[in-house]
Amino acid sequence: MSPRRVVILGSTGSIGRQALEVAETIPDRVRITGLGARRDAETLGEQVRRFQPEAVALSDPGAAQAFRAHVPEFRGAFQVGEGALEWLARWPGADLVLVALTGIAGLRPTLSAIEAGHDVALANKETLVAAGHLVRRAVANRGVRLIPVDGEHSAIFQLLEGRDPSTVARVVLTASGGPFLRRPLASLRTVTPEEALQHPTWRMGPKVTVDSATLMNKGLEVIEARWLFDLPPHRIEVVIHPQSVVHGMVELVDGTTLAHLSPPDMRLFIQYAFTYPDRVGVSYARMDWSRPQALTFEPPDPRRFPCLGYAYEALGRGGTAPAVLNAANEVAVERFLRREMAFVEIPKAVRLALDLHDPVPDPSLEEILEADRWARALVWGL
Amino acid sequence: MSPRRVVILGSTGSIGRQALEVAETIPDRVRITGLGARRDAETLGEQVRRFQPEAVALSDPGAAQAFRAHVPEFRGAFQVGEGALEWLARWPGADLVLVALTGIAGLRPTLSAIEAGHDVALANKETLVAAGHLVRRAVANRGVRLIPVDGEHSAIFQLLEGRDPSTVARVVLTASGGPFLRRPLASLRTVTPEEALQHPTWRMGPKVTVDSATLMNKGLEVIEARWLFDLPPHRIEVVIHPQSVVHGMVELVDGTTLAHLSPPDMRLFIQYAFTYPDRVGVSYARMDWSRPQALTFEPPDPRRFPCLGYAYEALGRGGTAPAVLNAANEVAVERFLRREMAFVEIPKAVRLALDLHDPVPDPSLEEILEADRWARALVWGL
Repeated sequence: MSPRRVVILGSTGSIGRQALEVAETIPDRVRITGLGARRDAETLGEQVRRFQPEAVALSDPGAAQAFRAHVPEFRGAFQVGEGALEWLARWPGADLVLVALTGIAGLRPTLSAIEAGHDVALANKETLVAAGHLVRRAVANRGVRLIPVDGEHSAIFQLLEGRDPSTVARVVLTASGGPFLRRPLASLRTVTPEEALQHPTWRMGPKVTVDSATLMNKGLEVIEARWLFDLPPHRIEVVIHPQSVVHGMVELVDGTTLAHLSPPDMRLFIQYAFTYPDRVGVSYARMDWSRPQALTFEPPDPRRFPCLGYAYEALGRGGTAPAVLNAANEVAVERFLRREMAFVEIPKAVRLALDLHDPVPDPSLEEILEADRWARALVWGL
Repeated sequence: MSPRRVVILGSTGSIGRQALEVAETIPDRVRITGLGARRDAETLGEQVRRFQPEAVALSDPGAAQAFRAHVPEFRGAFQVGEGALEWLARWPGADLVLVALTGIAGLRPTLSAIEAGHDVALANKETLVAAGHLVRRAVANRGVRLIPVDGEHSAIFQLLEGRDPSTVARVVLTASGGPFLRRPLASLRTVTPEEALQHPTWRMGPKVTVDSATLMNKGLEVIEARWLFDLPPHRIEVVIHPQSVVHGMVELVDGTTLAHLSPPDMRLFIQYAFTYPDRVGVSYARMDWSRPQALTFEPPDPRRFPCLGYAYEALGRGGTAPAVLNAANEVAVERFLRREMAFVEIPKAVRLALDLHDPVPDPSLEEILEADRWARALVWGL
């Protein structure tokens, strides 16, 4: 079989770089035909030299010159500026587009890839959170595959594969609980960005790492799961599992629970998305049962993790509410990382945005982006 | 769909009685057409009155009169004595035969059921341990299904279902470790039958419960797994998991581990065997993630559980060696329950039998039964 032709959007971020490690390991399975990033011209240049893609995109126009200076020999297709990532998402020489962009920036390129008839490996949470109904509709219209890359969703996707949906009672998403699971509640006020970025188990980008500390990460995943697996919110459960070994579980109607376990390593899930529905014999990490270990589980404490409840609430309200939840959170996290907001103000900003927003039902892309802009402006103005 | 017609061999034992509870709950799925037991005429009589089977068998001729006295109104087919259970195993009005007999007594009836073209739900360990190669051959010849009922094997069977065997790296059987997991080694000499029968997690018959305390149970399951799943011994691993919540695991070639979890309840596995490949919406127990819990895993200590190593050794030697292991163990457990042997003499008896036995390669049924008789006589004579 010829290798799958893969375009990576967001190749210079954490997931993008790990995806290229995976691609390099299974060249008979994956050929990189496109690489796109927002602005890290230097890293992108190195990647282009290594993988020789047909097409390259940079969304920051200011980064174009640095890229050219770095890889003067590159003769492939090249676009910069707004719309460059969408252009790359539609690249005809692709079978699969990995969307590894962070934030709402992943939305339009994801829809572009689907509209171009490409399968999508989705590592961007915000796309399904803000516009799950549009993505589901586009996927159904074009008959493409939407493969989750995120560990929790990949785990559940794998457990559900080939299973009659009527035999599924519920799915369980596990959450590490982040670095503040045991920290006294009162002391959360003084959390610094440095502390929030010390994730106990996963290697991830800064936005996602802070979201893990607030559990908004898991709230966004609940919303994604609703669209990925077509499940009502009450059949999506979250459990704290600090070891991050069990990534997801599926409970069947007879009481059987199936679980997906592995040492935490994103490359396993990226590889599965690349080779799906096949599974290849390259393992980055495997369980070691020769040493004693404990896997613990506990319900999330709503006082410690208010964001999780807000996510269920936004999902229940529907329409543009999840987009607002997501946008308010994205800006609040950014302002926390800039030391303009306290850690405990992140949920407060989200709460405020949800309270002030009147959701538009079954929104168009424009209505979603409008709600997104409104929530962003609101939280920037706090 | 019409209900599956089920014959239960060993209906008065622990598994048999639970199987009838299950059957009663899903009458649209299961109709009991035959019931057979060794000698418990009273329980069998009650079951016959409740389930109105077409055929009944008792292997102890002395129990026939008591049965007739108990259910004088029974007009169905009835056989007693040696061969009665094999007769029932071939009953034409059966789609599936559940073999819930304990010990080597399950072997001939299992082969009879297969030869008659019936699917077999196997809850008898010794059949595959002693004659796995014959059973595999018979199953292949007749094109019937062999469905494990034992929790660990059912778990793995479910996890492997529909999976390409080339993607499977190994299977992991979990063991509770039984009542003596933490007991000081030196004090194992003074273990009483009452102590050995206090199983921490599972509700089972006495023989199996003692085997759980020595881990011979798991050793026999390793041998069964070899035949059920056609795996070499080094790809079958055992891990101690005292909570008995994870019943089995499958590791795939990419490092993914899939696990099967449920609160320990045999009825879940019996039901699955009855309805396979369907799964019905009757659940006896389900995981409760709303309360904190820890699932622990540790490697088995070979000094505490020598029987496990002997089982791997017998599997490695092949031929009649597993039959000898099993027979020596069965008699040693019986003598322990009669207080004629100490608990720590069980592994010693097994060790002696293995040491004295020269395995017959690719043995016939007669050679297996001969080796079985030899080992029994040896251990009775100790």
